[in-house]
Amino acid sequence: MAVCTVYTTRSLNSTCSISTPSKTQQNSHQKQLVLYSSGKRSSKRGSSSSSRPWVISCSGSAGDSQTVVIGLAADSGCGKSTFMRRLTSVFGGAAEPPKGGNPDSNTLISDMTTVICLDDYHSLDRTGRKEKGALKSGVAVDKPIYNHVTGLLDPPELIKPPKILVIEGLHPMFDERVSDLLDFSIYLDISNEVKFAWKIQRDMAERGHSLESIKASIEARKPDFDAYIDPQKQYADAVIEVLPTQLIPDDNEGKVLRVRLIMKEGVKNFSPVYLFDEGSTISWIPCGRKLTCSYPGIKFSYGPDSYFGNEVSVLEMDGQFDRLDELIYVESHLSNLSTKFYGEVTQQMLKHADFPGSNNGTGLFQTIVGLKIRDLYEQITSTKTAAPLEATKA
Amino acid sequence: MAVCTVYTTRSLNSTCSISTPSKTQQNSHQKQLVLYSSGKRSSKRGSSSSSRPWVISCSGSAGDSQTVVIGLAADSGCGKSTFMRRLTSVFGGAAEPPKGGNPDSNTLISDMTTVICLDDYHSLDRTGRKEKGALKSGVAVDKPIYNHVTGLLDPPELIKPPKILVIEGLHPMFDERVSDLLDFSIYLDISNEVKFAWKIQRDMAERGHSLESIKASIEARKPDFDAYIDPQKQYADAVIEVLPTQLIPDDNEGKVLRVRLIMKEGVKNFSPVYLFDEGSTISWIPCGRKLTCSYPGIKFSYGPDSYFGNEVSVLEMDGQFDRLDELIYVESHLSNLSTKFYGEVTQQMLKHADFPGSNNGTGLFQTIVGLKIRDLYEQITSTKTAAPLEATKA
Repeated sequence: MAVCTVYTTRSLNSTCSISTPSKTQQNSHQKQLVLYSSGKRSSKRGSSSSSRPWVISCSGSAGDSQTVVIGLAADSGCGKSTFMRRLTSVFGGAAEPPKGGNPDSNTLISDMTTVICLDDYHSLDRTGRKEKGALKSGVAVDKPIYNHVTGLLDPPELIKPPKILVIEGLHPMFDERVSDLLDFSIYLDISNEVKFAWKIQRDMAERGHSLESIKASIEARKPDFDAYIDPQKQYADAVIEVLPTQLIPDDNEGKVLRVRLIMKEGVKNFSPVYLFDEGSTISWIPCGRKLTCSYPGIKFSYGPDSYFGNEVSVLEMDGQFDRLDELIYVESHLSNLSTKFYGEVTQQMLKHADFPGSNNGTGLFQTIVGLKIRDLYEQITSTKTAAPLEATKA
Repeated sequence: MAVCTVYTTRSLNSTCSISTPSKTQQNSHQKQLVLYSSGKRSSKRGSSSSSRPWVISCSGSAGDSQTVVIGLAADSGCGKSTFMRRLTSVFGGAAEPPKGGNPDSNTLISDMTTVICLDDYHSLDRTGRKEKGALKSGVAVDKPIYNHVTGLLDPPELIKPPKILVIEGLHPMFDERVSDLLDFSIYLDISNEVKFAWKIQRDMAERGHSLESIKASIEARKPDFDAYIDPQKQYADAVIEVLPTQLIPDDNEGKVLRVRLIMKEGVKNFSPVYLFDEGSTISWIPCGRKLTCSYPGIKFSYGPDSYFGNEVSVLEMDGQFDRLDELIYVESHLSNLSTKFYGEVTQQMLKHADFPGSNNGTGLFQTIVGLKIRDLYEQITSTKTAAPLEATKA
């Protein structure tokens, strides 16, 4: 719906604070998250001279309660909410709205994950936040909620320090002081053709906007999008790129999608998914003698590539799943999925078959990225707890 | 060299005869091979009204001595001799010329295999063969040898009944009465561009022919080739198709080859080789992060297809091997190779590194077909010997 998302949380023995930044405040066991107001943001990445930012710090009081911080950037209407619901589901626990919370919020509470919508902070000026007074050191913070429907702030929601903190919004990777604190970052890159089709669906059907106002809104946003949102993809550890299909010649319906999962190489605790033979270049049409598919079928591609000068592996899916056996067949041929049991990707996809993109690469790759984040979280925490054992050997 | 090939053989408790055909002569334990003179061959496949053919029958006197018969068809200068040497090598035993045999013959003796060059019979008319008198029932037959250098018949060679009898030549699959007796058939299909390059190499460099005479010879053969040789490929169980590379744009050197192994589905005791996922459509460039290759690299393709109305699987290799690690890497990713140990394909290729095509798909696929024929032979003989055991269960 229209309210920016906060998913929360299991109470942990750690503290979160939002304050002005300080060099001495930060150490290797502490995360600081810089929040700044969009109106005063500098146009040059990494520079903050024009606006003094605010910081969320999360530090564990026990060794195993470190917060893993994930950045998720995308333009509005690009599937961030759906992605977060898939991620929450991968970490387990029923996701449900907070008891006694804002009835217009689409906040869902799960066991492990807290999602902060960074965009909410953009709607506040510095004075406003200072006056809020609630964003302070302590066990929990009150987070403001910008309501896209009313254009006003809803009453804040209480956020307890999480195991996984997801900073989502238009530009969590824009400022290096934020992006450097992220353990993993994701950018949802929706091509103009697909974005337009999705916006029409959401803003016309669900929000009652007119086609003209949607077109005007996209045009008006374009310069800011190009300057502040789109450039973030070069810093992301994983990009989910959504394009029109190439399986149907001259397709302009935009219903069948070609989705690419671009995975940066050399990211700590993240090992890219691959198809058949790691590091080689492959194309695969699984539909054949063993698996039959309806037109236009499904085509996968995989291989090493370069993305903004970084070495990446790219997994691509063109087409869509019509039947369960297609999904499980594809899953069984992908490697490095970080599943805990055979068919976990398929199970997650079926569990949320009503989510947008559950029959194509957006749902598949969102689910896979969710599994990779769970794996990353487990590696970070197990490395930390395993370290003393390693030390005794030396 | 220039003499038609006879590879021979281990003596077995079976008989071979050449005689006129008789319905009663043939039963399920007996192979009959029809030989006819090319000048009188009917132009319509399967018809023999214009010429009464001759027959080789091979029948085992012991249950385990059945002869497995393989047909190998190709135009002259298309690699039949190289293929036969690879096949002989796969069956083991040092291949060497027959003791006391024709010094101009390129006959090689191995333990298991006899190759009869069907073309030799074309040079004889029926009277000539009758007068020869040597081609009769018995433990062994005298086989005439047509000498391509002198244009005359060399003294015949003694052929003992083999485990594997390969009928090679211009058209062993042209007549249904021959092709129906084959347990497996292979066609070497060399594209015109490649054939021309090969003929220049062989006939100019090795036989001293002029470029003009080679061109004239190819032109003169074209109508017969199109009518009698080329059509056989539709009946072959495996076709090795040799084409110019597609890796180098506008390549006209003809040194880098694109080779396709077309394998018929549903052939008894023959299970096609596949890449990664049986029955789906795949392309694979193994050169990447794990394996580096020099320009223009190597590209494999695999997938189901239709070939003259028959369901086939096609494995394609474009490019060539520069180093040993490339060959073993490729072998380790192919399935259903019918090897007896890891790396057997690579071992065979290295053993005969001096044979033409050892660095490309012709050598690779000839070796693979050799292994599949060995597997076919073992399945046929083990089925036969296992049959009584099955019967006692019923």
